[in-house]
Amino acid sequence: MDIEKHNQLLNILGQYYGMVYLSQKNRPKKMAYFDFVVSEIHGLRIKELQDSRKAGNKVIGAFCIYAPEEIAYAANATMVGLCGGADFSVPDAEAVIPRNLCPLIKSFYGFKLNGTCPYFQSSDLVVGETTCDGKKKVYELLNELIQTYVIEIPHKPDTQQGKEFWLKEVEAFKAKIEEVTGNKITAEKLKAAITLINNKRKALKRLNNLRLYNPSPISGLDALLIYQISFNDDPVRFTAKVNELCEELEQRVKDGIGVTAKDAPRLMISGCPMAIPNWKVHSIAQEAGASVVVEESCVGTRYFSELVEPKGDSLNDLLWAIVEKYSKIPCACFTPNDRRLKSVKDLAEEFNVDGIIYYTLQNCHDYNVESVKVDRVAKAAGLPMLKIETDYAMGDSAQIKTRVEAFLEIIAGKKQQ
Amino acid sequence: MDIEKHNQLLNILGQYYGMVYLSQKNRPKKMAYFDFVVSEIHGLRIKELQDSRKAGNKVIGAFCIYAPEEIAYAANATMVGLCGGADFSVPDAEAVIPRNLCPLIKSFYGFKLNGTCPYFQSSDLVVGETTCDGKKKVYELLNELIQTYVIEIPHKPDTQQGKEFWLKEVEAFKAKIEEVTGNKITAEKLKAAITLINNKRKALKRLNNLRLYNPSPISGLDALLIYQISFNDDPVRFTAKVNELCEELEQRVKDGIGVTAKDAPRLMISGCPMAIPNWKVHSIAQEAGASVVVEESCVGTRYFSELVEPKGDSLNDLLWAIVEKYSKIPCACFTPNDRRLKSVKDLAEEFNVDGIIYYTLQNCHDYNVESVKVDRVAKAAGLPMLKIETDYAMGDSAQIKTRVEAFLEIIAGKKQQ
Repeated sequence: MDIEKHNQLLNILGQYYGMVYLSQKNRPKKMAYFDFVVSEIHGLRIKELQDSRKAGNKVIGAFCIYAPEEIAYAANATMVGLCGGADFSVPDAEAVIPRNLCPLIKSFYGFKLNGTCPYFQSSDLVVGETTCDGKKKVYELLNELIQTYVIEIPHKPDTQQGKEFWLKEVEAFKAKIEEVTGNKITAEKLKAAITLINNKRKALKRLNNLRLYNPSPISGLDALLIYQISFNDDPVRFTAKVNELCEELEQRVKDGIGVTAKDAPRLMISGCPMAIPNWKVHSIAQEAGASVVVEESCVGTRYFSELVEPKGDSLNDLLWAIVEKYSKIPCACFTPNDRRLKSVKDLAEEFNVDGIIYYTLQNCHDYNVESVKVDRVAKAAGLPMLKIETDYAMGDSAQIKTRVEAFLEIIAGKKQQ
Repeated sequence: MDIEKHNQLLNILGQYYGMVYLSQKNRPKKMAYFDFVVSEIHGLRIKELQDSRKAGNKVIGAFCIYAPEEIAYAANATMVGLCGGADFSVPDAEAVIPRNLCPLIKSFYGFKLNGTCPYFQSSDLVVGETTCDGKKKVYELLNELIQTYVIEIPHKPDTQQGKEFWLKEVEAFKAKIEEVTGNKITAEKLKAAITLINNKRKALKRLNNLRLYNPSPISGLDALLIYQISFNDDPVRFTAKVNELCEELEQRVKDGIGVTAKDAPRLMISGCPMAIPNWKVHSIAQEAGASVVVEESCVGTRYFSELVEPKGDSLNDLLWAIVEKYSKIPCACFTPNDRRLKSVKDLAEEFNVDGIIYYTLQNCHDYNVESVKVDRVAKAAGLPMLKIETDYAMGDSAQIKTRVEAFLEIIAGKKQQ
């Protein structure tokens, strides 16, 4: 760890968090836990991971919701999301890898290079996946700094050969985790891990469904934060805390308390994942008066919409259930990715949104090209769509703000018609 | 076909060809055939394809050397490379798909959109592959304009599950070709097709090996042109014509006749494929006094280095041999791609090169990131490497020229040491 540089990072993060999060009005009381988690995200949580390692357990770092965390937990390991959402580490990465890559990739590679991500420093193994060219190729370089195991994800959805191949990749990953942890993954342990993570997904879905109400009892920024934290916190405690928050929110709904005006335009944000501390577009949209009510994103609905639902209790049944669930995640790496188009359409209806912000990280070909088809879905639903392509730097914030404000005026104009 | 726009294209192409190719001095006489092919590339060759279609055979368009042409020929179909090397069609594509994609993708999509590629217009089916995110996602949009079948290529080389999956993908492609052509692919027909294409690869390798001599009996531009034409010409005639040319070149070698000075710096170009009429970097390097002696490229060694070598005569043996051969193509889509690093090292030694130009198309993450590792190979071999990232427009030609000239001075300086 580079302690001095890490202190700089914490300083920036703390200031930014105060400005974006703590300045919000009328926040649910139970958000206090999540504020605390953020304040200790490089402190107590890391100590917990270190303690768990001292007790002989392993920590598996990951970047993507295709890394099957059930497998890790079934071997008494903890899976954590690695740092990759900050501009802070991008210049370090750009000294080695090309500049015209997506900021997420440059951020994570830079974080490992400059040694300021304690999650990287606490990981016994990093799990990558073949969801995009950029990550796939940079994992090779990351593997020179920390052992990185890559799971291959087939890209044509729903072919029989693709699913059988995926099963074999999951089995190979299971063998790797067994090797790294020294623990055998039994059907019983895997079943328990599936229940553990299903419970987390259920709590997140319960939270998300509370945003169906108008006005929403929780802000988009706060919901996003919780989805982000879901990749780092202890799953049992996190699930309990999310459920506690949901109880408060349910009471709010009964009392008619919301965080925005009832007539605030309701937005969906659809596209690339947003890792901590990537709160740029949500904060701009919220400040401009919009209510972000749903994220069609890996840090959002794609993570928790579906559960792992085994058809039996054998190891094979459980592994197949993992393949079936994960193959329903509508990542733009799939071709064609009709599930995502359906998901955008359904969520737009269900959440009664007034417009869609299409969010793509710079140089992300998958999401960038898929915007063409999502735009058609939006048009067919009569919904305005604003496409924002950006990185983690703040240089374009004012420009994005202007565009979002103009977009909200279009929505207001449509509503008056 | 948009006839008027197509005439514009032919006009530009003809002028550019005259400038780049016909201005070369001391060309082999047998290049006349290939000049003729270029002059008739949108004429006689298209008529041949149309005649073959009238006779009941099919034309399969493709973009990538992973599309197993042996399968197409085994069903009496012809496989042809589709247009994708010209800036001409890029503005049409950019009206629909994002600008920050690789020029090859924008070029092919634009060519289908604007209807000026007679190969697209003559194709009964287009075959794509999952070699990169950009192509994969744009094939979905291309499929709206012409039936596009996508073969999935596993990205981790040499895993047993990956090869078994690949075999199933090849079998599925075979079934598709049988459906489109109405012809059953027998072991006998597939074996004949393998021999047909092996002969083409052998002729190309024979040609390439003649560039081992110093001075080379053929220019880099001319060799590149032949590799490009290999994707469009009739394979039997093409193979015969390449072998005739090789005889002339062998005589040249005996007579000590070369196309450059004996002390001209010998360059390898390694990286992205160059489709007709992408002659930009070769022409700049050649004009600056270099001799391009080998292309570590899909339009180069990756296409012809390996043959399909069945271990038996059954259909299964033949299909496995296709999988084995194709999985040795060291495309940057693989992770890790150690075969390519070895190939660059070996070719540099074998061809006695003085330097490497690393060629990457803009926004090609696979080749862009892999340059980090190839650069290390170059350094370890004591070879200077110049990385050029460019598109099909001519706006950066002067800048590239300056960089290439400076690079050749570095090489000259090293030689004097």
